[in-house]
Amino acid sequence: MKRIGALHVLTDTVLQSRHTHAELARMAVAGGADAVQYRQKNGHTREMIETARAMRDICAGSGVPLIVNDRVDVALAAEADGVHLGQDDFPVALARNLLAAGRIIGVSAGNPDEARQGIADGADYVGFGPVFPTGSKSDAGEVQGLEKLADFAIAVRAPVIAIGGIGADNAAGVARSGAHGIAVISAVCCQADPEAATRNLGRLIRDS
Amino acid sequence: MKRIGALHVLTDTVLQSRHTHAELARMAVAGGADAVQYRQKNGHTREMIETARAMRDICAGSGVPLIVNDRVDVALAAEADGVHLGQDDFPVALARNLLAAGRIIGVSAGNPDEARQGIADGADYVGFGPVFPTGSKSDAGEVQGLEKLADFAIAVRAPVIAIGGIGADNAAGVARSGAHGIAVISAVCCQADPEAATRNLGRLIRDS
Repeated sequence: MKRIGALHVLTDTVLQSRHTHAELARMAVAGGADAVQYRQKNGHTREMIETARAMRDICAGSGVPLIVNDRVDVALAAEADGVHLGQDDFPVALARNLLAAGRIIGVSAGNPDEARQGIADGADYVGFGPVFPTGSKSDAGEVQGLEKLADFAIAVRAPVIAIGGIGADNAAGVARSGAHGIAVISAVCCQADPEAATRNLGRLIRDS
Repeated sequence: MKRIGALHVLTDTVLQSRHTHAELARMAVAGGADAVQYRQKNGHTREMIETARAMRDICAGSGVPLIVNDRVDVALAAEADGVHLGQDDFPVALARNLLAAGRIIGVSAGNPDEARQGIADGADYVGFGPVFPTGSKSDAGEVQGLEKLADFAIAVRAPVIAIGGIGADNAAGVARSGAHGIAVISAVCCQADPEAATRNLGRLIRDS
C-alpha cells in the first residue's frame, strides 16, 4: 500500500480568483499539505497540462504528491503523481492500466460497495463525502455526517479521505471519526491566508 | 502513411438535439462517411467514454475509423481509432507516445509551420480552416478561403482535411482546391436527413 497523506488540499479558481492553481499549490505545500489535488472541470486541455506541470514542479521539490482530478490525460501528460476519480469520471480499472504502478489513484465512493469496487479496481485510497454541507461542489450529493463517516471508515479497508464542508471548526472531529485524512477546498483556497489555513488544519488533524 | 478517408463527419449535439452522437454516427456510416469524429467539449468523462464506445461499435462494423476530438483519455478508454487535436488540445507528440502506432492522429493547423510541427510530432493528417464562415465553432478563427487552402495543401506534405462552413454548395470547390478531404458538422448533423446529406457530400467530393 502506498503511503497516503492526511491533508489533501484541492486547488480551486472558481470559488476564488485571487490565486492561481500554482499559487495555491505553493501555499499549500509551504503550509504542510500532504497532497495537492488539481481540480478543473472546464478549459483547454493544453492549458490544463501546463498548469498541472507547474503544480507538479512546485510539489516535487517538497515530495508532496500532485494528484489530478478526473483527467487521466492531463495527469499522464504532466507526469503527475496520481489521479482522483469520481464515480462519473474516468474508470479506476482503466486508469490503473494506464498509470505506472507507483502512481496514486483515489476514488470517490458514496457507500462501501463503491469503495470496495474502486479498491478492487486498483484505487489506493477512498474519498467519502460530503461529510458536512458544502457549497464547493454543485453535485456533491446528500450530506453524510460523522456517524456515516465512522461506519464507512470501519467498512472500508483503505485510507478514507473525508471531504465536504470540512474546516478548522470541525476537522478534529472528522479525524476522530476514523477518517485517515481530510480533503479541503474553500477551507484553504478561500481563506485570507491559505498557507496559514493549511498549517492550522494540519495541526488540528494531527492533534486530534 | 495510414490511409486517411476524405469525408469526415463530426457529430454534434449542441447545434442540434434531435439525434445523439451514436445516432449521428450510425447515419454517417450508413451514408458512406470515411471517418466519424466525436467532439464533445463538456460533460462527465464516464459518459463520454460510454458514448465513444457506442460510436466505436457502430463504426467498427463498417471499418470506418472513430476519431475522438481532443480527449486522449476518452480515446484510450473507448479504444477509438484515433484522436484529432487542436493547437489548444492535448499535445501531438505526447498523444503519439500514448496511442498505439496504428492509431490515427489528426492535428488542426492554422499555417504550414503548425502543420509541419504536428507532422513531425506524429500526426497523420492536418485539419485546416475555417475555409468559409461558420457558426459551428465559436473559436474557429479567421476565415481562410479557397486560395489559402490551396497554398496550404501545396505546402503541407500530409493529407489536408478542410473544415469550416463546408456543405453541399461548396464541397466540390474545396476538393478541387487541393484538399484531400473535408470535415463537416452542420452540413450533416443539422440537415433534415443526415444520412442522405452524408451520401450527397461524398458524391460531390468524389465527382469533383
